[in-house]
Amino acid sequence: MAESEIDRLVQLLAKLPGLGPRSARRAALHLIKKRETLLGPLADALNRAAETVHPCSQCGNLDDHDPCGVCTDVRRDGSTICVVEEVADLWALERGAVYTGRYHVLGGTLSAIDGVGPEDLNIDSLVRRASADDVTEIILATNATVDGQTTAHYITDRLSGANVKISRLARGVPVGGELDYLDDGTLAAALKARREM
Amino acid sequence: MAESEIDRLVQLLAKLPGLGPRSARRAALHLIKKRETLLGPLADALNRAAETVHPCSQCGNLDDHDPCGVCTDVRRDGSTICVVEEVADLWALERGAVYTGRYHVLGGTLSAIDGVGPEDLNIDSLVRRASADDVTEIILATNATVDGQTTAHYITDRLSGANVKISRLARGVPVGGELDYLDDGTLAAALKARREM
Repeated sequence: MAESEIDRLVQLLAKLPGLGPRSARRAALHLIKKRETLLGPLADALNRAAETVHPCSQCGNLDDHDPCGVCTDVRRDGSTICVVEEVADLWALERGAVYTGRYHVLGGTLSAIDGVGPEDLNIDSLVRRASADDVTEIILATNATVDGQTTAHYITDRLSGANVKISRLARGVPVGGELDYLDDGTLAAALKARREM
Repeated sequence: MAESEIDRLVQLLAKLPGLGPRSARRAALHLIKKRETLLGPLADALNRAAETVHPCSQCGNLDDHDPCGVCTDVRRDGSTICVVEEVADLWALERGAVYTGRYHVLGGTLSAIDGVGPEDLNIDSLVRRASADDVTEIILATNATVDGQTTAHYITDRLSGANVKISRLARGVPVGGELDYLDDGTLAAALKARREM
């Protein structure tokens, strides 16, 4: 018997992060129940996203115009560039609504195991942007993982020629964090970087 | 600023059961990263499902042909009809691969609170099917909830005129279940329905 259209839909939904086989089945039934209000619009949104959403040629953010909304927003401070690993990190910082500069999305981290070298990441374009006259500070906001920190150190080296200040995010106790549940590394970093009250 | 295509995609994905706002964002980024292998095929599968998948006019199962694959499978026993609330329940029983009869999907349960009456469910068609000559047993496999059991009792009443055996699923300790974690109702039911070794 040929594979049914529902089976095919379930198999594709199960490939989404966060959906296993069981929740993919639930999602497929939900979609077919809401044919007009959800299934149709979602199919349209997917098609439109496939056509219109592309990486920004300047910063690597995903948007339906190029340069992206962040790069073209004149209210944002062009003198600061925040370097992040992935678009998801950019979104996380935007949700915080504290940072008003621009971004640069690397597209991953250096990784010897996965064979990711500097030429696989958007590092050359970052060096070019950093040498522009109006850029004064580069904030390295890669993840606090081994790969993220290796990448941050590599970028610091590469930017040594550019006349910019290079900073990184603070390490310490997360807001709402309980000391008893924190790892030793975080506690040591928080103690080392303690500040006067 | 107009809403971006990505935001629209994220909002629609977040309406799927099992995906919250954060996992919908992850899913959207994953889809855009896998434009060729996942985003395109998923959009196609949604469009095809919207066109071709419809409820079976006989049993209420969802399939891309009518009558559905279960109703047209000649290897299945047409003398037994298993009554379930939703298509998901039918799929769950099919995964078990033990039941070889046919099904009838009610499309929900009677519910005074939600204003669901007998006319909103596929009960009339069940009564018609039950009066057919070749049907000998109706298995009521509604959920073991108050609404599910109310519905089962109502159907038993409605089928009193038809010359069929009416049964329900056994209650008891689930396979792998530990007594200490079971509720009193299940334990009482299991004790009452005990069987000789």
